[in-house]
Amino acid sequence: MLIIKEQVAEAYKQIQDEICLGLEAADGSGKFIEEGWVREGGGGGRTRILQNGSVIEKGGVNFSEVKGKLPEAIKMAFGVNNDDFYATGLSLVIHPKHPFVPIIHMNIRYFEMPAIDAHTEPVRWFGGGIDLTPHYIIPEDCRYFHNQLKTVCDAFKIDFYPKFKIWADDYFYIKHRQETRGIGGIFFDRLTPISSGISWDKILEFSKAIGRSFLPIYTSLIHKNTHKAFTEKHKEWQHQRRSRYVEFNLVYDAGTKFGLETNGRIESILMSLPPQANWHYDFKAEPDSEEEKTLALLKKGVNWIGI
Amino acid sequence: MLIIKEQVAEAYKQIQDEICLGLEAADGSGKFIEEGWVREGGGGGRTRILQNGSVIEKGGVNFSEVKGKLPEAIKMAFGVNNDDFYATGLSLVIHPKHPFVPIIHMNIRYFEMPAIDAHTEPVRWFGGGIDLTPHYIIPEDCRYFHNQLKTVCDAFKIDFYPKFKIWADDYFYIKHRQETRGIGGIFFDRLTPISSGISWDKILEFSKAIGRSFLPIYTSLIHKNTHKAFTEKHKEWQHQRRSRYVEFNLVYDAGTKFGLETNGRIESILMSLPPQANWHYDFKAEPDSEEEKTLALLKKGVNWIGI
Repeated sequence: MLIIKEQVAEAYKQIQDEICLGLEAADGSGKFIEEGWVREGGGGGRTRILQNGSVIEKGGVNFSEVKGKLPEAIKMAFGVNNDDFYATGLSLVIHPKHPFVPIIHMNIRYFEMPAIDAHTEPVRWFGGGIDLTPHYIIPEDCRYFHNQLKTVCDAFKIDFYPKFKIWADDYFYIKHRQETRGIGGIFFDRLTPISSGISWDKILEFSKAIGRSFLPIYTSLIHKNTHKAFTEKHKEWQHQRRSRYVEFNLVYDAGTKFGLETNGRIESILMSLPPQANWHYDFKAEPDSEEEKTLALLKKGVNWIGI
Repeated sequence: MLIIKEQVAEAYKQIQDEICLGLEAADGSGKFIEEGWVREGGGGGRTRILQNGSVIEKGGVNFSEVKGKLPEAIKMAFGVNNDDFYATGLSLVIHPKHPFVPIIHMNIRYFEMPAIDAHTEPVRWFGGGIDLTPHYIIPEDCRYFHNQLKTVCDAFKIDFYPKFKIWADDYFYIKHRQETRGIGGIFFDRLTPISSGISWDKILEFSKAIGRSFLPIYTSLIHKNTHKAFTEKHKEWQHQRRSRYVEFNLVYDAGTKFGLETNGRIESILMSLPPQANWHYDFKAEPDSEEEKTLALLKKGVNWIGI
């Protein structure tokens, strides 16, 4: 079966609804505010933001479905010679209040370009991923997180988790700091039956499974950590870690760059930026501190399941 | 007379000394901490940072003198086909505590590449500028600032101020927000006798004059505003304006990009980032508020001297 793009969009919207309801329940007091928007050139989306909740300081869960003509620079980057494109996706970033609750990011997306003539196939692929950025690395949480992702992946194909874990390590890397953004997770792009070895049907199911894995994983991490006591020092460190998140998103993140270059809706794109971030000159973590232990683990190739 | 690069570097170092002494006096309690650094590949610098002063929350006044081989991407961008380069510069950014004292940035720099053979000339030019980012636009301060810059420019060439003012408007522009970073100032690059119409001697004097204009201008702006009362609302707005400063520097600033790509000293490059920046989703200034008036003026082509 080939993919029907409207069905992908419908599935993503439904997952957006499930996630927002689930996060409001986990938060206890915060409510999402929705803003619908229309894109000049085609399509639009629904941005949902929760600010100043009990657990979530700032979080966005955004659905979009955009179509139109691709800018020249993006065509070159994608290696396609067609103008028309269609893209739908669900993207979320949560910045929690509590410094022991991690930042999380999840994205599922589908991209399509029609065939240019009767002799060619349409271009289409799925992409996405889910990754965690703890302010403080708690090994038990890392094991849990990566194990959950491995379970989701293994149900579809046994090489997905190891391949997509390496991909996440490489992607979420802050080159100028020589550190990873967090503990990674999984990242994949241009998934097709040829590149993945599973059918279009299965790829769509995989995409939905990733989307639906977010809520139980993150609510577990909230409940496990949100009652812990913390100090001003922990908050200060949280604000510093968030500044690295800003550096990654503005300097390297492909989704952010794509959005800024294609004249996307700025406030929806930059909802990923934290409510507060601090930059101190040349901060050095104290030897043997929790902060130093966290920094030492922000590198590629860590076996989080075995940690 | 041709430029002797060591003399440029010496002049810039002396201006760094003057500025740091002057800023410490204006601050009253803060002291600069110096860190010398050596660049792999050639050269180094002296980074001077003042944090948590009475007036200056975070400020950096950095001298650097780097040499070596130019990366391929930079060669292409510069349109030069020589490997060896020499660059010296003085760069400063001050983030004040007080929301009515503006953020300021100043840079003077000299770039040189030796002749590739006996038939060619060495490539050399000066660049730089000075620009202001008020959290709240105070027309009287804008008039004063631009008038001072015009006076410095006019002493060298009558078309400098109008040309370099437009250049600053174009350069310090946050495209995705469709707003200028602040009220601009002057910006210039690749200044040579041919491009400027004045001799190398005069260009060097102009570069030094820009460097020396900073201290009297900024101390005036400090003394004029630092006694004013302010509220939490003003501080919150300051943190939001700083987040735009982060967006400009990480997404567009050529100096930052050059530094990240040439493997520069990260903490010296990113000293320009503010101690605290806040991002709130889709913040709207209240109608007729001071915040809204400021936003309305963040555009190109404002005649600040006549405002």
